[in-house]
Amino acid sequence: MENTLFKGIIAYPITPFDEKEKVNILLYKQLLERLIVSGSHGVAPLGSTGVMPYLNDEEKQAITEATVTQVKGRVPILVGVSNLTTERTIYHAKFAEKAGAAAVMIIPMSYWKLSDDEIVRHYDAVAKQISIPIMAYNNPATAGIDMSPKLLKRILEIPNVTMIKESTGDIQRMHYLKKELGDSVAFYNGSNPLALSAFAAGATGWCTAAPNLIPELNIALYNAVQKNDLQEAQKIFYKQIDLLRFIVEKGLPRAVKAGLQILGVEGGYLRKPLQPLEEHEIKELDRILQLVNN
Amino acid sequence: MENTLFKGIIAYPITPFDEKEKVNILLYKQLLERLIVSGSHGVAPLGSTGVMPYLNDEEKQAITEATVTQVKGRVPILVGVSNLTTERTIYHAKFAEKAGAAAVMIIPMSYWKLSDDEIVRHYDAVAKQISIPIMAYNNPATAGIDMSPKLLKRILEIPNVTMIKESTGDIQRMHYLKKELGDSVAFYNGSNPLALSAFAAGATGWCTAAPNLIPELNIALYNAVQKNDLQEAQKIFYKQIDLLRFIVEKGLPRAVKAGLQILGVEGGYLRKPLQPLEEHEIKELDRILQLVNN
Amino acid sequence: MENTLFKGIIAYPITPFDEKEKVNILLYKQLLERLIVSGSHGVAPLGSTGVMPYLNDEEKQAITEATVTQVKGRVPILVGVSNLTTERTIYHAKFAEKAGAAAVMIIPMSYWKLSDDEIVRHYDAVAKQISIPIMAYNNPATAGIDMSPKLLKRILEIPNVTMIKESTGDIQRMHYLKKELGDSVAFYNGSNPLALSAFAAGATGWCTAAPNLIPELNIALYNAVQKNDLQEAQKIFYKQIDLLRFIVEKGLPRAVKAGLQILGVEGGYLRKPLQPLEEHEIKELDRILQLVNN
Amino acid sequence: MENTLFKGIIAYPITPFDEKEKVNILLYKQLLERLIVSGSHGVAPLGSTGVMPYLNDEEKQAITEATVTQVKGRVPILVGVSNLTTERTIYHAKFAEKAGAAAVMIIPMSYWKLSDDEIVRHYDAVAKQISIPIMAYNNPATAGIDMSPKLLKRILEIPNVTMIKESTGDIQRMHYLKKELGDSVAFYNGSNPLALSAFAAGATGWCTAAPNLIPELNIALYNAVQKNDLQEAQKIFYKQIDLLRFIVEKGLPRAVKAGLQILGVEGGYLRKPLQPLEEHEIKELDRILQLVNN
Repeated sequence: MENTLFKGIIAYPITPFDEKEKVNILLYKQLLERLIVSGSHGVAPLGSTGVMPYLNDEEKQAITEATVTQVKGRVPILVGVSNLTTERTIYHAKFAEKAGAAAVMIIPMSYWKLSDDEIVRHYDAVAKQISIPIMAYNNPATAGIDMSPKLLKRILEIPNVTMIKESTGDIQRMHYLKKELGDSVAFYNGSNPLALSAFAAGATGWCTAAPNLIPELNIALYNAVQKNDLQEAQKIFYKQIDLLRFIVEKGLPRAVKAGLQILGVEGGYLRKPLQPLEEHEIKELDRILQLVNN
Repeated sequence: MENTLFKGIIAYPITPFDEKEKVNILLYKQLLERLIVSGSHGVAPLGSTGVMPYLNDEEKQAITEATVTQVKGRVPILVGVSNLTTERTIYHAKFAEKAGAAAVMIIPMSYWKLSDDEIVRHYDAVAKQISIPIMAYNNPATAGIDMSPKLLKRILEIPNVTMIKESTGDIQRMHYLKKELGDSVAFYNGSNPLALSAFAAGATGWCTAAPNLIPELNIALYNAVQKNDLQEAQKIFYKQIDLLRFIVEKGLPRAVKAGLQILGVEGGYLRKPLQPLEEHEIKELDRILQLVNN
Repeated sequence: MENTLFKGIIAYPITPFDEKEKVNILLYKQLLERLIVSGSHGVAPLGSTGVMPYLNDEEKQAITEATVTQVKGRVPILVGVSNLTTERTIYHAKFAEKAGAAAVMIIPMSYWKLSDDEIVRHYDAVAKQISIPIMAYNNPATAGIDMSPKLLKRILEIPNVTMIKESTGDIQRMHYLKKELGDSVAFYNGSNPLALSAFAAGATGWCTAAPNLIPELNIALYNAVQKNDLQEAQKIFYKQIDLLRFIVEKGLPRAVKAGLQILGVEGGYLRKPLQPLEEHEIKELDRILQLVNN
Repeated sequence: MENTLFKGIIAYPITPFDEKEKVNILLYKQLLERLIVSGSHGVAPLGSTGVMPYLNDEEKQAITEATVTQVKGRVPILVGVSNLTTERTIYHAKFAEKAGAAAVMIIPMSYWKLSDDEIVRHYDAVAKQISIPIMAYNNPATAGIDMSPKLLKRILEIPNVTMIKESTGDIQRMHYLKKELGDSVAFYNGSNPLALSAFAAGATGWCTAAPNLIPELNIALYNAVQKNDLQEAQKIFYKQIDLLRFIVEKGLPRAVKAGLQILGVEGGYLRKPLQPLEEHEIKELDRILQLVNN
């Protein structure tokens, strides 16, 4: 089934820059490779973690191509193609399909609050132009729009919209999706601190930047759930929750970048206006990472 | 340990009235007996479900005494003694202790938003006057105050405050409590639709009015968690979620009253301004109860 | 017209207690007299400022009677009679009418969120038992319920509900009331920091505890608006805004009590859980009062 | 003084497209001319109304140049140059200055919530590259970030940040700005339904798309305030409030486009995902415009 293309841990790479804020493709491939070899079940370039909205068209295309080249079919690829205009969204969705993505992820980015009808037409216009599945992504914190369960249900009537990524942080949304949509639609958790609750509620996968820093714990949580071992899952979850909360609170690209540095991994530079974490924040992260790894 | 006095399903009885809005103690005892024989692990009179704030001092005392008489030691009793003034809270806490309550539950009711210091002093003043444990109750929706995790931590430094009931509906609060307070403090879930997530997060018990209508499912959820069977817990949870959501959305006393009527159980009258559910709401509840019981 | 009973500055007295937390009627009368002689156009005992919800039935009645005795018809009296149950609300509304109140103020206090129908029936049940006008009071921060403009319109269909006090702090509500209800209904501002905007929007009066501390500035603002002098109104408003913000932020009874002390006026004690302001808060208030009076 | 470059009514043109979603510069100039001849005191191309975020670099530059050409110095021009990255913001700010803008408007667009430090550095980096003044724009609804009064104060320490546009819809923010910053900084209202309150609070100007539809009423409100005639201002405000609310609720570009059509003015096409208003919405707008013009 299309909706089981992705499951388990779907890892989000960062997009590293060089000193002059140019995308560093070579370093990107190295960081991506870390995610694959550490056992992630899928990868998702050009997500929020990958600062997709800060990249121009050429840069996005270079990242997509580099991902396909590096992955070499080892895991399925989910490419973020969201854009403020429908025309540019279609453009990048077609590019991703042609390049070899397994699916595309689309959040209805908005400057002006879009009506439900505008959002449905937006998804529909893109869906008509590609053959691969679409993961509809709900995240009011970054998109400025909160797609209601009712709207998501409408969007899921579009044939190749087969997956939902839920990042409101409200577990009731997942209960609703599971209850209303049953097994015909896979839903994915995009809210890191909800990882345990979401799996308990029946999420098919977890979309997360955490494998850049703690892949073993992320994968162990999924495995415990697969083994129906709630006590083990709870124990593993509480080992990583401080890290999950920290990276969400500080912003994923900045926090992952700082974490890589602590781990001794080259993570490149950020693109402005993003700035490195403050010294005291880095110390806090250092402390959290040491506790996590004990 | 004091903090394991209560565990599992702590059932909240309604307070039934007669036609003239007088408390009907005889009927109260019958409704309470249903909760005990159906297997609840504890009972909690004078909660929100029992419309405690709508009762005068004499009525509250009559309910407390009737509960002790009826329970006859079969399960522990948690009596709600919250009041706007510190003086009245102390009065009812002492009464409950003397009558035979195992513990009292206290929410910092507020008309004026209380400062953290005022809340701590309020709990402290009550705690000094009784020997039984206190369950601190956080529920911004009814109290008008949201006690921060930091404040709860301060309150827990008071020796006989040993339990927390969390009803914000935010699972992250429970993660925090579990992580920060470890096993020294028991926390209880007071948000019905969070029942699965809360148990997954390590809640010791579930404070709920649902056993008035679906005791078997409530207890079965707890049992599945005790057996470490996540898949079974998930299945049982999704069977009852529509009912849990309904009773919360419509208000517990009104919804329980309507549900009892559908089940053919006499539930008495409500006290105004509370009114019976509308006809269409009763039909919806009827439909939900039929699905639940299949 | 009934709806012009009250206009201008409607002053809210505090309820002072003695050392043992008993209501101090003698001191209450002195504090009330200050409000009258300083020029307030009406007085409103048993409001939030008067900690009405913290008083028992006998105490409320004593305050009502003391107010009528002291005022001696010099200004109209608006008595707060809100209660969680409909029965007690009726009881106090009838008492107020008999004692000589010009009108009663009713907020739909709620523990359980009331439905629109429940709120309308509540007002209707009270209105049927008295002949004096009712001011419907909307204040989600203290009542836990936010009456929508649509609901307020329904309540205003009850014949003796002729005034609305709006305390959401959202000026758009007043725009709506003025636009929808025209001149047939008087609306009053209950949000101190909105005083200028509300008068600019057409509010008939300002319900405020500020005259306990700065009556001249409160009255001067109203007078400037009456004279259609916007620039003067703006100037006077900015002179008092820091004080208005302070008393709202700290809670009216506590802030007024502290302010009286600074002004050298005996204000009695608070009833617990309310505690006096902290030392640093009192210093801040002192600084604000000195600036205001220059 | 630099901060009085703009005052009164600063009108926001829409950006019209042709059938194929290309920017229609000729039509843009005609629509801009309407704003100038109807008496607006300034114009602001590339605002939210002008769907700036939906335009690519070349399109933005064409609009800027067309504005300068058309205005011919008759009114000052405020060009929107906000961008997700600091580098692109600088690029467009420099372009606007060179083209002849009187000032630029910058909102800290964010995908990732920016820290206060990141925002200050962003403004500072742009400010250093241009000589014309900057209007800092706060609008959490479109930017996803709410700049606190404290942060705005920091930004205003940058020499050529001399104006603030406030669009939170909270009049208290303007009170704070006026009180804290005094007369050294001009603040502008960007929330249409707050027009009366904002002028009453001392706003120097009103940034609005309304002059596309009802320029006479917008200008009359400003004139009444200038004449210190509060009653007249109130009367004129209530004549236009329904229109102001409608265009905000429906989204400015879509609502202005529909309004132009009703007025018989060619407004071009929208760029997708934006869609024309629904039929019933157009009827409502028609009714409102008829009432307004009587």
